[in-house]
Amino acid sequence: MSKQKPTIPKGTRDFGPDKMVKRNHLLNIIKSTFRKYGFLPLETPSMENLSVLTGKYGEEGDQLLFKVLNSGDYLKKVDLPLENLSSNELTPNIAEKGLRYDLTVPFARYVVMNRNEILFPFRRYQIQPVWRADRPQKGRYREFVQCDADVVGTNSLICEAEIIMMLNEILQELNIDGYSIALNSRKILIGIAQYLGHPGLESSLSVVIDKIDKIGESGVYQELLRNGFSDDAIEKLKPLLKLEGTNEFKLEQLQTSLKGIEVAESGLREITEILTMVKAMNGNVGTVNFDPSLARGLSYYTGAIFEVKMLDGSIGSISGGGRYDDLTGIFGLPDVSGVGISLGVDRIYDVLETRNLFPGKPSDTTQVMLVNFGEESLTVALEVLALLRNSGISSELYPDMAKLKKQLNYANNHNIGYVILIGSEEMKANKLTLKDMRTGEQKVLTKEEVIKQIK
Amino acid sequence: MSKQKPTIPKGTRDFGPDKMVKRNHLLNIIKSTFRKYGFLPLETPSMENLSVLTGKYGEEGDQLLFKVLNSGDYLKKVDLPLENLSSNELTPNIAEKGLRYDLTVPFARYVVMNRNEILFPFRRYQIQPVWRADRPQKGRYREFVQCDADVVGTNSLICEAEIIMMLNEILQELNIDGYSIALNSRKILIGIAQYLGHPGLESSLSVVIDKIDKIGESGVYQELLRNGFSDDAIEKLKPLLKLEGTNEFKLEQLQTSLKGIEVAESGLREITEILTMVKAMNGNVGTVNFDPSLARGLSYYTGAIFEVKMLDGSIGSISGGGRYDDLTGIFGLPDVSGVGISLGVDRIYDVLETRNLFPGKPSDTTQVMLVNFGEESLTVALEVLALLRNSGISSELYPDMAKLKKQLNYANNHNIGYVILIGSEEMKANKLTLKDMRTGEQKVLTKEEVIKQIK
Repeated sequence: MSKQKPTIPKGTRDFGPDKMVKRNHLLNIIKSTFRKYGFLPLETPSMENLSVLTGKYGEEGDQLLFKVLNSGDYLKKVDLPLENLSSNELTPNIAEKGLRYDLTVPFARYVVMNRNEILFPFRRYQIQPVWRADRPQKGRYREFVQCDADVVGTNSLICEAEIIMMLNEILQELNIDGYSIALNSRKILIGIAQYLGHPGLESSLSVVIDKIDKIGESGVYQELLRNGFSDDAIEKLKPLLKLEGTNEFKLEQLQTSLKGIEVAESGLREITEILTMVKAMNGNVGTVNFDPSLARGLSYYTGAIFEVKMLDGSIGSISGGGRYDDLTGIFGLPDVSGVGISLGVDRIYDVLETRNLFPGKPSDTTQVMLVNFGEESLTVALEVLALLRNSGISSELYPDMAKLKKQLNYANNHNIGYVILIGSEEMKANKLTLKDMRTGEQKVLTKEEVIKQIK
Repeated sequence: MSKQKPTIPKGTRDFGPDKMVKRNHLLNIIKSTFRKYGFLPLETPSMENLSVLTGKYGEEGDQLLFKVLNSGDYLKKVDLPLENLSSNELTPNIAEKGLRYDLTVPFARYVVMNRNEILFPFRRYQIQPVWRADRPQKGRYREFVQCDADVVGTNSLICEAEIIMMLNEILQELNIDGYSIALNSRKILIGIAQYLGHPGLESSLSVVIDKIDKIGESGVYQELLRNGFSDDAIEKLKPLLKLEGTNEFKLEQLQTSLKGIEVAESGLREITEILTMVKAMNGNVGTVNFDPSLARGLSYYTGAIFEVKMLDGSIGSISGGGRYDDLTGIFGLPDVSGVGISLGVDRIYDVLETRNLFPGKPSDTTQVMLVNFGEESLTVALEVLALLRNSGISSELYPDMAKLKKQLNYANNHNIGYVILIGSEEMKANKLTLKDMRTGEQKVLTKEEVIKQIK
């Protein structure tokens, strides 16, 4: 076999140590916040049966599923004549499994399969890669990590308030400001469809309004007209989409406009209650923007919906979610209400990178390198190395007796904070030379002093 | 579509919160040990190009690769007549990517692709799932996590000694005893083949000796005879495989038997040096067993080899590894020597489970649940909840005003240590009732006292 240069599949990435340390910083903050709010970890298999995945993401989604070829002599079991067969006809006969497309469907599948063991309400978080056969482009990958937290088995709005609290806390811990948590309710959109004289068309209304950032207000109105909305409806919609002011003001305005439309009133009451509870938890409602034009495309949302955007518009939404009343219904378990949020790890990473918000000295790189001066000092060096590690200090001995310059260069390049030198002088005095790689300063110290200094 | 009961693919598993908390306990100890020894994290894509994977794991391995169907109308690009085509002929035409089979080949691929950016020696650890289309059976899965640490770009035996240190430290931190780290060198096996009068047959020798646990000593001899080894060779081999005693004794015996065989002498010297360095690091050499019959099947090992076994024989090896001189050679980058170790997470998990070694109160479950007494106390409850979380205490408010018994049952079932009750009495007195769920003890305390108590 020829030794060609290896490559990785397009749309996939390696994460070397530099990136991993940064990603871990981000994921650790997310995880510890989720945990503080009582969410417990769940992981599901990367492969799901295609019967579980297919039909859950719309026709386009089905095309974007990565399918795994059956193992063994898979053609043997195909009963069809192969000539003139289309790919779409062949696929179900040679592939039974697919790669996870999101974390929501596997979660619903898990809840249904374990309904008898789970004590509801069930709070889980899940951080795992998903795969989509999308056309790769800047910021869009074929393998990327999703990061979800959901509570299922309760209608309580406390969960919605807690999601806002968690979003604020995660972004604050990451030192990200200048963001807005858009909040709306599907119930308000249903009410608006009724108010416009098109009851039942809320899905179509949501899908079109969802494009407002892309096609603009006038684009929305044109598309609604094409979708059968009346001129009159458009005129009634305009002031609603244009509402500006405090959350309280917008809620009041809509309470007036939508008075008597029960579902809308219920949605508005819920938004008010969620905001009240955030305040009761001493949360920052200043970041929350009640936005009746927020729609979110996914059809399974039935109550509150969320979306987090950067105010500078530099990047798409970094998080989104909402309440769903019947997610597990697709697998035959009705009436399990839940609410969840998904965080876009790659986009948040990009915000941190662009704004230079990663900590300068990540805590999980190596702290100390011992210079290797060869056999004479090796025993002492190994002893010191063990001492450092036993004190919980991550450390390494340069494995070869290379030139000092090369060894120091390695330490520098790996962002290692301290270097220890043990030459003949030091051995005689039973001391160590500790070099601070940032300042260049060198001190001759006892072992105990060295450990104290580093800690 | 009918709502059939969903299932997961055979050989795959869901990891619910109980299992995840335990797996995290295990993985966190492994990770923090790796980090303490200067290893840095790496992650590679789940999918690799089949050109990278194929031919690296032998013929059997190629059959066990999960292949991913090309997306879109993949049949359109197939230039062959489809009738009478075998699966093996069709596959390369409709699948370009496969799922990672181990972490070693992707690591070698990463090193080669990033050779110009990596400053050697390069220490990386990698903890990710791998996939094998094996027949599922007890303890063998189609998706399982591998956990590797490797140093490449140095010949220094310090790395071998550090691997022994890490293995001891990880198992000690996990409270696992009764294990043995078998240590040998491929060089000794090469020397033995020469000594037996069959120079160059060390691979065949290794493969057969590797089966000693399965087929027994006499089975090994019979298979060697079938593989062309002479009767005389078998007679010479017998005492070597039967050597018993201290490591020093066995090393001495072999030094005598293999005297003059350069490669064997070099291997024996290396083993001695590794053990000396472990001692210099204050490590426990008592767990290390120099075992000249240890072979390890993989053909790429060239120096020291390791395998960790439980002394009670309850389970196969829980870790294995060794030095390889030319891993990246398969991708056209020769002369990069390295040494690595792989830990069997599922097997170690089973040991911990069987021996009841998981901590009774895992640190990352929810610590406190507030009972929900309804609207009247909701504001106070939310305030206390925020206070707890701001103090870093993971806590949740039961979202619905269910019966007290149901709420307490939930706390019990989730292993939550404390419950807080805020009824009208408590509200009047501006105090909280804290219930210790293990002892059942209840105390009326101020908020500050509650936080103190829990911490």
